Amino acid sequence: MILTVTLNTALDITYRVTSLRPHAEHRVSEVVERPGGKGVNVARVLAALGYGVTVTGFAGGPTGQVLRERLAGAPGITDALVPVAGPTRRTVAVVDQRTGDTTQLNEPGPHIGPAEWAAFLRAYDTLLADASAVALCGSLPPGVPVGAYAGLIRVARTAGVPVLLDTGGEPLRRGIAARPDIVKPNAAELAELTGSHEPARATRDARRRGAQAVVASLGADGLLAATPEGHWRAAPPARLRGNPTGAGDAAVAGLLSGLVDGLPWPARLTRATALSAAAVLAPTAGEFDPADYARLLAAATVTDEESAA
Amino acid sequence: MILTVTLNTALDITYRVTSLRPHAEHRVSEVVERPGGKGVNVARVLAALGYGVTVTGFAGGPTGQVLRERLAGAPGITDALVPVAGPTRRTVAVVDQRTGDTTQLNEPGPHIGPAEWAAFLRAYDTLLADASAVALCGSLPPGVPVGAYAGLIRVARTAGVPVLLDTGGEPLRRGIAARPDIVKPNAAELAELTGSHEPARATRDARRRGAQAVVASLGADGLLAATPEGHWRAAPPARLRGNPTGAGDAAVAGLLSGLVDGLPWPARLTRATALSAAAVLAPTAGEFDPADYARLLAAATVTDEESAA
Repeated sequence: MILTVTLNTALDITYRVTSLRPHAEHRVSEVVERPGGKGVNVARVLAALGYGVTVTGFAGGPTGQVLRERLAGAPGITDALVPVAGPTRRTVAVVDQRTGDTTQLNEPGPHIGPAEWAAFLRAYDTLLADASAVALCGSLPPGVPVGAYAGLIRVARTAGVPVLLDTGGEPLRRGIAARPDIVKPNAAELAELTGSHEPARATRDARRRGAQAVVASLGADGLLAATPEGHWRAAPPARLRGNPTGAGDAAVAGLLSGLVDGLPWPARLTRATALSAAAVLAPTAGEFDPADYARLLAAATVTDEESAA
Repeated sequence: MILTVTLNTALDITYRVTSLRPHAEHRVSEVVERPGGKGVNVARVLAALGYGVTVTGFAGGPTGQVLRERLAGAPGITDALVPVAGPTRRTVAVVDQRTGDTTQLNEPGPHIGPAEWAAFLRAYDTLLADASAVALCGSLPPGVPVGAYAGLIRVARTAGVPVLLDTGGEPLRRGIAARPDIVKPNAAELAELTGSHEPARATRDARRRGAQAVVASLGADGLLAATPEGHWRAAPPARLRGNPTGAGDAAVAGLLSGLVDGLPWPARLTRATALSAAAVLAPTAGEFDPADYARLLAAATVTDEESAA
C-alpha cells in the first residue's frame, strides 16, 4: 500500500453564498463536509486511480469523528489515524456564487501532546513495514516539533521506503536536509526556501539542499523538475480555467504512483501534470473526471530543461 | 421554571482573523464554540440572573451533540431538547480584528420530519405544565410548518402560561394572530409586518393584529412599547458603542423575567433596556457584566409616549 501522512487533518467545509460581503449576514445555501488535509486529498486521488492507500496522522474530537466516519465510506482508503484529545480542525471555504471565487478560513488544529506524538511514531513505524512509498503532507499542528518531518524521513529511509515531502516554511527547510526522495514545493514555498523567485534556479538550489528530486508546482505554468535523471518542465496542453484548490495534491498523487510503478521521470511528470490539470477542471476541489485525465495524459507535454540551465 | 423554545438551535462558532479579505486564505487565530439560537441565548441571560430555565427545541448530529455537552456545563439551564436525525446548524461569525466588525455565515438548519415535529409537540405540552412563562424564539428550520408558532401560542394560552414571541416574517405574521402576551420585533421585522417605517405607528398597528403587548427593539433608539397599561419608550442613558449581537435576546430575557416577577410595565422595560445595553457593552455576544447591568438599571429612562399617539 501507499501511505500518506497528514499530521494536521481537517474537516473541510464548503459554504455556498450568493455573494460574500464583509460585515454582512449571509444565509448559506449549501453545506458540504469532506475529510481533508493534504495527505487525505492525495489518498483520495490515489484511491480513485485504483491504488490501495492508508492514511495516518491525527484525528480527535467531534470533528475528528465525522472525518473518520466519512473516511470509512471512502472505498480503497484504510484509516490508520491516531486518536488525540484535541478536536481536528475545520477549514471553511466560502464560495461566492456570483464570482465563483473562494474565501478560505483555516482553523489552527489541535495541540498534540508528547504522548500523542510518541503514539504516532509507533504507528508510523508499524505502517512503514507494508508501505511501498510514503507521502508526508501539509502543515504541522501545534505541539509537533518543527523538525518532525526530518525525523519521519530518516525513519522511512532506514526502512527502505521512498518518501515524498510536501510542506512549506521551516518544516520544509528541516525536512529537505534529511534527504527525501522527492519534495514538491509550490512557487511560494520554493521562493521562501531558496530566496530566489527564478523557478529554474530555485528548483536546482532546493535539490542541492538534500532532496534527490525536486518538483515545483507552478500553477498555470505546470511543473518544473530537477531529478537525478535530468531536468524537465511539464505542462498541460493549454491554460485551464477552473478551481486550483487540490491541484497540488493531485500532482503529488501522480508523482507517488509513478514512483511506485517504477515509471521513468518524464512519465511520472506527465501523469502528475494530467492529474493536476484534471483536478483544476473538476467542480469539486481535489476530484477529477477520468475522461479529462485520460485526455490530458495524452496531451500533456514534457520538455527538456537541460539547455536552460 | 421559565421555558424557552428554539426550534432552530445552533452551534455558534466565532473565528478571529487579522483582517477578512474576500477571495484570500485566512489563518484563524482563535476559535470559540458556544450553544446558540435566540432561545438558548435568552436562557443564558435568564440563568445568569438566577432564574431556573429549561430549553427545548431540536438538536441532532455531531453539532447537536457538542451543543448539548456545552449546555450540560451551563449552570441553571436544563436541557429538554428533542433529538432529531439531521445535524444542528452552525453559525460562523468571523471577527475582523482590524476593524472589530463581524461577518456572519448561517447554515440553514436540519430538515425536521413529521414524526420529529410530533415528538416536539408532546414534549412542549409536558414542559408547559411546570412553566411560569414561555418564549418562542427565532427562525423555523426546514420542514416545520410556517404556522408553528401560532399553534404553540394557542397551546400555551390553553395551559394558562404567558407566552412571548420573538421571530420575523410569515411566522411572526401568523403567530401574532394567535394572541401572544408579548411580541418583540426589531425594527426590520416590525416594518415588514406592518408596512410602516414609522416605529410608533407600526408598534400600535402590530398590537392591533392580536398581540396583547408589542415591544419593538430599535437598536440605539432603545425600546418602544405598546401595552394594555400604556405606551412607553425606554432607553439607556447614552448611546453605547459595542457589539449589538445578542442585545435583542437580552431584552427578551428582561421582559420575560419582569413578567414572571409580576413587575409593572415600566419596570419590565427598564430591566429589558438595562440588560440589552449591558449586552452591547460585553465583549462576548449575549453575555453581560452584572456591574454594568446594575449601573444601567439605575440610569435607564422610561418616558410616556401617550401624548405622541
